[in-house]
This record gives sequence, structure tokens and C-alpha cells, in this order.
Amino acid sequence: MCVPGCQETVRRALSRRGFFRTAAAAGFAASAVGTSGELVQAAPRSKNVVDLTHTMSPEFPTFFGTPGIEFERKFEIKKDGFNMFLWKLIEHAGTHLDAPIHFSENGATAEKIAAESLVVPLAVINVVSRAEENPDYLLSREDLRDWERRFGKIPVNACVAMHSGWARHVGNAAKYTGKDAGGMFHFPGISPLAAEWLIKERKVAGIAVDTLSLDNGPSKDFRTHTLWLSSGRWGLENVANLDKVREAGATLVVGLAKVKDATGGPARLIALM
Amino acid sequence: MCVPGCQETVRRALSRRGFFRTAAAAGFAASAVGTSGELVQAAPRSKNVVDLTHTMSPEFPTFFGTPGIEFERKFEIKKDGFNMFLWKLIEHAGTHLDAPIHFSENGATAEKIAAESLVVPLAVINVVSRAEENPDYLLSREDLRDWERRFGKIPVNACVAMHSGWARHVGNAAKYTGKDAGGMFHFPGISPLAAEWLIKERKVAGIAVDTLSLDNGPSKDFRTHTLWLSSGRWGLENVANLDKVREAGATLVVGLAKVKDATGGPARLIALM
Repeated sequence: MCVPGCQETVRRALSRRGFFRTAAAAGFAASAVGTSGELVQAAPRSKNVVDLTHTMSPEFPTFFGTPGIEFERKFEIKKDGFNMFLWKLIEHAGTHLDAPIHFSENGATAEKIAAESLVVPLAVINVVSRAEENPDYLLSREDLRDWERRFGKIPVNACVAMHSGWARHVGNAAKYTGKDAGGMFHFPGISPLAAEWLIKERKVAGIAVDTLSLDNGPSKDFRTHTLWLSSGRWGLENVANLDKVREAGATLVVGLAKVKDATGGPARLIALM
Repeated sequence: MCVPGCQETVRRALSRRGFFRTAAAAGFAASAVGTSGELVQAAPRSKNVVDLTHTMSPEFPTFFGTPGIEFERKFEIKKDGFNMFLWKLIEHAGTHLDAPIHFSENGATAEKIAAESLVVPLAVINVVSRAEENPDYLLSREDLRDWERRFGKIPVNACVAMHSGWARHVGNAAKYTGKDAGGMFHFPGISPLAAEWLIKERKVAGIAVDTLSLDNGPSKDFRTHTLWLSSGRWGLENVANLDKVREAGATLVVGLAKVKDATGGPARLIALM
């Protein structure tokens, strides 16, 4: 067995070398072979796990204005011995994934997205101050350039996430949707030009937004959706807690429900740091 | 920037030390600080990700014999510009999680299970040969003892998974449910005594089975469900691909849909090795 303090010692030793900072610090199932040959495992340390998922409920703001989920009780413990509901769930409500088929005729359905492409480096682009000035802000090519100046090239297979600060409005549907008197939405999104650059110049697996849509509120042509999803990549919407995760160096696990023929679906987003 | 071969060099250096075998081999967002101070990131290596999730569809075998999911098309791309379905989904169908409230009056609902307790060491207990001899096999206290003799004490906060080999029958509902002429099910499960021992003697977060139920097919009192869930722990059912994951040393990420008041729900299970 590993003597008390052993793992901390290893962690410090690795830290001094500056290598594998993320993996070492996380201690995911960190394993060592003890003196008698058995495997010694450490539990993950909770402080390295960040939940990027909003809680879904009938009150969660939706693009269509109708509840994204409704419940029907099927069994009740006092009567039946256990509790169980049936859900009526819109595929694109709450924290969820858009599969390529959502905006393409022949794109991949949800179950075809391989698990390997759902475990990805996370690049968080902070546009909070710009979104405060302009609720229709579009994350730009310049914002991506700024991130790369600070952190280096966007990693291969990454998820590039727009952090606009919008998640803090989720309890206020009027502010979160930004719906005006004319029925137009106002919230930030990702510009088609930035999306196009990521497709052509970087090998990126997905994009993510902390708002209702990859396109900004006023968009009428859903150009970012169309460009991005028809290129065979996935998108994430209504992402939470991007203020609690590092701008570079975290790994995102996209816990997408694996449903045949689905155009997307609820996803538990867990960041490992 | 890290020169070519740098990460492999680091990996070998760590491997020689025998420390952090899992974390180093996985290379999840492995980070190093380059000479000019920027963060250098590596994409996760796909061979270290194993999907423990079955694809859900209306044909997936269920405990109740009725479809676990049904679809209603809401939008169609040729007519509406995009594709979208509404799902009618039973909380306890396909690869899914049982929350404590499923078999208790006041247990935690799905959204209350913290993300920290959904990233856990995975201990896989192989009872394939025993289940071949006896389709009603109950994973026993002895099976847990055998695992610990080989791999050491079950890690704190682990998920203990029964690998009975049943996942290979999932395309054959008659075999998977084992329903006999009298309507009784036949498939393996976890014995109440083994569950009770894990609750009292080990600090375990969850249990998992590659069959329809934590209890075996013939169970009438659902004693393992009741004991386990009322203790505040979670369970996983219809787990896939346990033959493709190490018996010790993997980390399981439970991508549970985060739904308010739910008694469980679909979960994307991703093992990181």
C-alpha cells in the first residue's frame, strides 16, 4: 500500500517538473503499484470537478417559450413500492447538445458521436465585458486571437466555449431570452466568421455557448448553426458555470444521452481540472 | 512549445517511476508550460476512452415490456429548416441511473447528486462464468473478497460494477430479460448481503449492473434496490462494454441528465483509462 502522504509527495514532485499539471493535480483514479504489487487507487478529489450543467425543469427558459420538459408520474412509492416518472422532453432544451443532423439533412445523429470525441480539451473565451455592453454580442475572430496570444494554439479536438456571463440570468427568463416588444431575442452568440475560421484553421470538435443558441438572439438565418453543424461538428447550448473553470487546461466530458436517431439531447457537462 | 516527442518522453519517465500510471497514460488535457510561458495542451488520446453506454431506442429491452422511449417529430429540416424531436422517456430505461428517491420516500432526487460523486474509481467484478452456469446468479460477498485479493481494497468513493456478460444479450430481449412461461425474469444481480457489506464496510458511491436491475430477475422484494438506494447511494443499470475496461484503475464519469425532482434518468457512462 502507498504510505500516507505518498500521493501528495508524488504530486509535488510532478509539480516541480511542471509536467502533466492537469492530470497530476486531478488525481483521476491515480494509480501506483505498491511494494507488494497491488494496485493502489486514489479517489478523485472533488475540488477538481466542475459541473457545467444547469438543472433542467419546466421553468427553464426555452427558445420556443414552452416548457422544455414535462413530467407524468407513473409510480408512487406509497402505492407501488417505488417512484418513477415519464418525461416529455424537447431534445434542444436545458443544457444540451446539438448533433450535426439538427441543421443538416444527412448529418450524424446523437448516438453516432463517438465517446472519444466527447472527452475534449476545453478553451473558454471570456467575452463578459463585451456582452455587458452589447447583449447581441458576437464572439469574433479577434476574441479567438486574443485567447491564443495568452494560451497558445487552440488544442486539437477542443471544445471552444463562449463565456458571456449569460448563465447568471438563467433564473430570469425575460433577461435570459432578452425578448423585446417585437418578439426579437437579445443574447450573445458566436459569429459565423469565427465559426468558419475554427472549421478551416483549427481542428476543433465542438463549440459551446452559455446562452440559448449558437447564433445570437437577433439571428434570422442561423448561419453559425448551419455552418457548424453541417461541417459534422457538435454544439452545446445553455452551458453553466464557465466562470468556475480555467480558461485553458481543463478537460470537458460531454455526457450526452445516447439515443438512436436523436438530433441532440440533454448532456451532463463535467469539467475535470 | 513542447518539442515533438516531449509528451512521450514525459510519459515514459513517469512510467518508469510507476506513479500516476492512469493519469499519465490517459494524457487528458495533459498540460506543460513551454519555454515562453504558454500552456501547451495535448488532446485526449482516443484509445483511453471507453463508452459503457448502450444506444437507447424503442426496441431496447425494458423491465416493463413497453418501449422505454418514443419519439414525436416536432420540426423537419425540409419544411422548417431544422430537425427536432420530442421524447417520451421512462426515467428507468436503457443505460440509466437510479437515484435514492427511486426506492425511498425522502431520498435525493437526480439533480441533488453532486458532480463530484459522479467521477469515481471503477471496480469491475467479473462473474461471467458464474452467470453462464446460473442466469439468476447473485454477485456475492466472496466475489468482492476475490477482487480485493487481486487488486487491494475497493477504493473510497468507487462504483462497484457487476460484469456478468449479460450486455452481449441486449439485442435479444427474450434472453436479456430471461422471461419464462410464468412471466418470471431470469438475469443476474447483486446480492443484498454483498450490498449491505459495501454499505457498512466500504465507502462506495455506487453500484452498477450490466442487466435490467440491481436485484436479480426472480427477486420479488427488490431488497438490494431498497437497501442500497435508501442508504443515499446511486445505482446504474444496463451498463455496456464492461469487457472492454480494466477491472481496476479506470475512472468512471457518470453523465447523468440533471433534471429537477427526477428519480433517475439516462446517463452517458464514460470510462477513462
